Order: sequence, then structure tokens, then C-alpha cells
Amino acid sequence: MVFITRRERFNAAHKLYNAQWSEAQNAEVFGKCANANWHGHNFDLLVTVKGEVNPDTGFVINLKGLSTLIRSRIIDRVDHTNLNLDVDFMQGIMPSTENLAMAIWQQLEGEIAAMGAMLHCIKLVETENNYVEYYGDRVL
Amino acid sequence: MVFITRRERFNAAHKLYNAQWSEAQNAEVFGKCANANWHGHNFDLLVTVKGEVNPDTGFVINLKGLSTLIRSRIIDRVDHTNLNLDVDFMQGIMPSTENLAMAIWQQLEGEIAAMGAMLHCIKLVETENNYVEYYGDRVL
Amino acid sequence: MVFITRRERFNAAHKLYNAQWSEAQNAEVFGKCANANWHGHNFDLLVTVKGEVNPDTGFVINLKGLSTLIRSRIIDRVDHTNLNLDVDFMQGIMPSTENLAMAIWQQLEGEIAAMGAMLHCIKLVETENNYVEYYGDRVL
Amino acid sequence: MVFITRRERFNAAHKLYNAQWSEAQNAEVFGKCANANWHGHNFDLLVTVKGEVNPDTGFVINLKGLSTLIRSRIIDRVDHTNLNLDVDFMQGIMPSTENLAMAIWQQLEGEIAAMGAMLHCIKLVETENNYVEYYGDRVL
Amino acid sequence: MVFITRRERFNAAHKLYNAQWSEAQNAEVFGKCANANWHGHNFDLLVTVKGEVNPDTGFVINLKGLSTLIRSRIIDRVDHTNLNLDVDFMQGIMPSTENLAMAIWQQLEGEIAAMGAMLHCIKLVETENNYVEYYGDRVL
Amino acid sequence: MVFITRRERFNAAHKLYNAQWSEAQNAEVFGKCANANWHGHNFDLLVTVKGEVNPDTGFVINLKGLSTLIRSRIIDRVDHTNLNLDVDFMQGIMPSTENLAMAIWQQLEGEIAAMGAMLHCIKLVETENNYVEYYGDRVL
Repeated sequence: MVFITRRERFNAAHKLYNAQWSEAQNAEVFGKCANANWHGHNFDLLVTVKGEVNPDTGFVINLKGLSTLIRSRIIDRVDHTNLNLDVDFMQGIMPSTENLAMAIWQQLEGEIAAMGAMLHCIKLVETENNYVEYYGDRVL
Repeated sequence: MVFITRRERFNAAHKLYNAQWSEAQNAEVFGKCANANWHGHNFDLLVTVKGEVNPDTGFVINLKGLSTLIRSRIIDRVDHTNLNLDVDFMQGIMPSTENLAMAIWQQLEGEIAAMGAMLHCIKLVETENNYVEYYGDRVL
Repeated sequence: MVFITRRERFNAAHKLYNAQWSEAQNAEVFGKCANANWHGHNFDLLVTVKGEVNPDTGFVINLKGLSTLIRSRIIDRVDHTNLNLDVDFMQGIMPSTENLAMAIWQQLEGEIAAMGAMLHCIKLVETENNYVEYYGDRVL
Repeated sequence: MVFITRRERFNAAHKLYNAQWSEAQNAEVFGKCANANWHGHNFDLLVTVKGEVNPDTGFVINLKGLSTLIRSRIIDRVDHTNLNLDVDFMQGIMPSTENLAMAIWQQLEGEIAAMGAMLHCIKLVETENNYVEYYGDRVL
Repeated sequence: MVFITRRERFNAAHKLYNAQWSEAQNAEVFGKCANANWHGHNFDLLVTVKGEVNPDTGFVINLKGLSTLIRSRIIDRVDHTNLNLDVDFMQGIMPSTENLAMAIWQQLEGEIAAMGAMLHCIKLVETENNYVEYYGDRVL
Repeated sequence: MVFITRRERFNAAHKLYNAQWSEAQNAEVFGKCANANWHGHNFDLLVTVKGEVNPDTGFVINLKGLSTLIRSRIIDRVDHTNLNLDVDFMQGIMPSTENLAMAIWQQLEGEIAAMGAMLHCIKLVETENNYVEYYGDRVL
């Protein structure tokens, strides 16, 4: 079993805001992340896949194919968008880094299985000071 | 003459859109940067100051003071904002990286002179693949 | 279960020196790290926390709260200090990166549990070429 | 149990090419990585070792010793070489990042055990956008 | 006058070897960089352009256009190649980082002028520890 | 004229403290940098040299030679030391990043001239958020 990771990047706007709450409560919990007119980030998305190495290619998965998959399924839908308004697979979901990582997992898991490998981890880096990792439903 | 640089960071939303133009023209020139619902970035702001070294301190400028200045004059006004809507010193200005760098220069030049040093360069990094540098009106 | 990591930084002096040993033995084992007058590093501290995502906030833990905790419990006590002389929770402990990581775990584990999440990993980066990870007493 | 990681670097040429295949098949699977005249990379090799902390030194392993081992066993044999032609322990093996990581594991595992610690992970970074991790035969 | 920089990347093999010299002289001057079977690098190419800001766009130059130019004129011809053998504009030139930077300048200078801006600097990063900058024939 | 830069690194302790001043004045100006028991940093030293390219080698300067020079003249004297106490060429000089950069210039300028090139810039990076550049006495 070998693990291979591909990084792709996207730039997006979002805000953290719970419409069930008062302004004061939003301000208290989310601070400036609740700014009504949005803010944004450069996100780094790292997709880790695991599997056996194919003896003919030396590959767990063809990285060019993995890159194409991540771009078509994720990057093309989130890059230069507003995560609260523009992304179909985030409709009705608070666009925290945690929720976004889990939603990306749902988008990719089956597709990577169809390529003969297994999705292991979605790592989403929001700033140089914080990132989220999601490993699916497996107990860790 | 010694040069010293302080880095501060901010996260903001923006779009590049010229209201004098048709949608088609905006799309052609600005591409996905014109997305109506905004997108965003993590910006790195590097402020380079020059001057003589004070023999009592070994400093061109007190970095703590420089950091406080950059935060109060710039970061507090642009961080977690929408550069098109929320920033007073960007009103009516296309928020390209170039224009933002020049506007930040205007905000800081006099204040740094008042601290006894000279502003040398504003460097603004928008993504790992592009950045802008502005050195004021000096011919280079 | 989602994992979220917060990075904080500190700068400190230390030396690696075993007072039970001869100078020659210290020099042999610790080399220039035993320099009598100390040396120092920029340390990166990465604290990884795990837990369920709160449906109201989209958060495993409030990162602002986690940052405040790490700063008050760790950074304020180690930043711009001498790790051998100035840090109460390192008294009598060789300030290797390994021991420092384990000591930081002890300081944070209970506090993070009190915030409703679980400490997963302390990663301490001493230089661009070496870092330590500690996951508590769990067998891995 | 504490984990410590040492990074070393090397620069090498290689190509991905299966001599059992037609040119067309090589081009389809490996793309420009099959270029007949080679291409190359700056590789980052991260070796993670685990063990108990020695109370006399505060060390899992002496990093200077680990660095010397990695350099003599790996770096001196792969740095400024052609991975297809020049490296004895890669003879007859497709020099994909996956295979190279596994081969490095074989070279280091016993030597690190002889130093009283356990090899945990070989991480090999080929570009800023992809890397491989190998944890040995352990089921993960 | 504002400066804007675009980064692109390529991976290539090369060797430093003077055919006029003996093996011993090559070994003495170029060391392991003269390895007969080549070695390679991940190169970062940073192209800095200067000009006035267009009031309609806020741009010195359209970065998408600049990226397309750099890719078509440089990256497509050097990426996944052997710099000694495969690159037309390097025929008969020792592929040192210095010479490569100057050759890239020759390729781009006129094209960038045709886009209404001025090429200011070619920066070529060979490893994390060394890079070259070329500013054309201007006296500095 | 081409510019080439070599990076070397060192780790050192220091404090900023003016013995002519009261404790209160030191605390006010230098803050926690005046901590009596020192603190420390990982320093990155970037030495930029300029010159004509030698047609036989493609080099402005032999980088291996430049690296050896920087290590013997600077790194061996500052690495794993206390900049206030242990470094002969810093005796009686406040070890601010500014002063250290200027002192390193003095150490290297003549030696690089003797190698047939010209020292252009000493850049000294103290943390990810601040660095100093010194270009000698030239008016800029």
C-alpha cells in the first residue's frame, strides 16, 4: 500500500453566517468571518489516494488522470466563485473549511474508486496558519 | 542605507469588473475574475522601508512600530472585507493588485516618513504565482 | 470525525547539555547544540484537534478560541525565552524538540478537552529540515 | 512513542518508460514523462522515525547520526544521477516516485533498527504538487 | 511605473560539461553537475514586467496573456526536456542557470514589448538554495 | 551583468539590549527582544553576487566556491552561537538584523572580489515576517 497526494488550488469568497442567529450571535461566534460583504482565500486542496503499485507503470494512480478528475469535479466548480452562493454541492451547507473538506470527499470518493484506487484523505489549507483533514467515516 | 521589510497578511474578496463595459467585454478581459458574486484571496503585504541605522538601537525603524502602523492603517481596513465595497481608500478604484499596491503606498508613505524612515517598496502577493511591486513615482 | 490544525510560532534560545556528563561526552553527543552560550530557533507549533463538526457553526472547534488558548498557555510562556532557564513547565527537562513537544501536549490536552474537542497531535518544527510529532500515549 | 522527521534533498534525472510497450502506449500513459532524453526534479526526502525518548539525551534518535545515515545510504547514491541508469538499488525498477520511495525504505529500514529506532514513513516530494508516502508492509 | 511578476514552472534534465576540456578539468570545475548521464531540477521561472497601469483595467499587463506567452514561448519548449539536447534556443550554449536566464530573456523581450509593457527581470530558481536574476543589458 | 544568489542558513541566540540605558528604556524599545536570558532564531542568509558570465563555464561565480566561502567566513562563526557573546566580528555591535547584515557584508566583500565577482546584496531573513537587505555604500 502506497499513498500519493496531488495538490490543486482555488481562490474563492465566502462568509460564515448562521441565518438562524441574531447579528450579535453571528458576530460573537464568527467575528470578522461573518462580514456581510464576504471575504476570501487562496485554498490549497491536497487529495491523498492509496493503493497497490501497478507493476507495469510504477503508479498507484495516474497523476495526470487524478489531476484531471480533481479539476473537473472540484476546481472548475469552486475556483473564482462564492462558496455560499455559486457552488451546487455546497447549497445549504455552512462553508466552513471542515464542511467544504467533507463535501469534496463526497464528490471524489466514488470517482477515485472507479479509477481503481482508494481516497484516503482530503486536506484543505485555508491560510498558512490553519488547515483541515478529513479521512471519511473511518474511525481513527 | 539599509532596507528592512515587514510582512503582514490579509484575506479579502474582490472582483475585477468595469461598469463602463458590456458583460462580454468584462468576460473577455477579466475572465472568471469578473464573477458577479466575487472571489477572494489570501494577500501577503510586504512593506520595505529604508534609512540609516540608529547607532543606539541598531534599527532602521522599530519593527514593532512599523507592524502597528501597517495593521492600523491597512490591515484593519482591508482584512476580511470586500475590496470593491468595504474599503474607504479604494472607493471608485478597480481593485486590481496593481491599484491596491499603489493605494497602500499612498496610505503609508507619509506615516513612515513621520517615523524617520523612507518607504521604499510595496509588494503585494496575490497568489503563489503572481505579485506586484510599487516603488512610488521614482523613475527606475 | 474531522481534524483541524492551528499553527502558532515562537522564537527561543536553548542548548542541549547533560550536566551528568563530561564536557567531552556532551560534545560527542550534542555537538554544537551544546554551545555553552546557547543558540536558538524559530519554532513552528502545529496543534491538531479532532472532533465532530457542530452543525450550527460548521466547526470542530472555534479556531479563534484555539489560537487564544495556545497563545496564553504556550506561546506567552516560551516566546522570546530561554527554554532551559525561563520556562516553568520545562524545569528539569532537557529541552530537546521531542521533550518540548511532549510537555506542550501535557499543557494543552485537558484544556482542549474542556473546549469539547480532542487533542490529536503536537507537531513542532525546529528547522526546515527536522520536526517532531507526538500523539500522546496512544499506541500507533 | 515520539516521531521525528529528517529532510534531505537530491536532484536527479529520470524518465518513465516501459520497454515492453510501444512508443504510442508509453506516450499515452506517461506523456511527456517518457521523453527519450530524460527530464529531472529536485526531490525532497523526508524520513520519519519513531521510538521512545532516551532520558539522557531527550532524543528518539540522534539526528546527526540519522542525517549521516540517509546521506551515505541514499543521497550519495542518487544525488546528481540518472535514476534509470546510475542507481544500483533501482536497477530494473521503473523509477516512479512510488517505486523510489519503496526502494529507499528497503535501504534504510534495517539500518535504523540497528540504531535503536523504527522507520515509520518515507515521504518523497517530487514537485510542489505531488508526493508519495510509504509506511512499509503494515496494514493501515 | 508598476512591476508585476508571473511565476511558471518546469522540470528538466541537464549537465554542465565543457567538451573542450579533459574529464579531470570538467570534474574539478563542475563536480557532480558533470555526471555523464545527466541530473535534473524543478525550475521556477519568474518573469517581471513593468509599465504604466491601464486605467480601464487596473493592469500593467493582462496576466492571463502573460502566462499564455510564457507557456507557449518557454515552458512548452523546456518542460520535461533535456536542456543540453532538446531545446532549440539553447543549442550550443552551456545550460547553466545564468545562460538559461539570458536565453529566456531573448525569447521574451520582444514579445512583451509587443504587448505594450517592458520586460524587467528574468529570475530562475534552480534549487531552494540558488537562483539567478538577469535584467538585460541595462547597466545597474 | 548577471546576478546569482546563494542561500546558507544558521541558528543563533541573541538579545537586543543597550547597556547605556535603563531597564525600563530597554523594555520600552526592545520589548521581549531584550529578555535577559536571550532568545534565538533560524536565520536565512542570501548572498547575491554579480558579474559577467564566463563563456567557458557559463558561471558568474562557481557556486560551490561561493558556498565554501560563505560557510568558512560566516556560517562556521555564527551557527549555533550567541551573537552577543561568541562572534568575533560582532564584538561591541548591537546584534540587530541590520547590523549583522552590514557586518557580514564587510566579511565577504573583499573575498568575493578576489574570486572575480562583485558582492551585490546581503539579505538576512530573521523570521518569515521580517528581513533586511544591505547593498553596501552605494547610493540607491
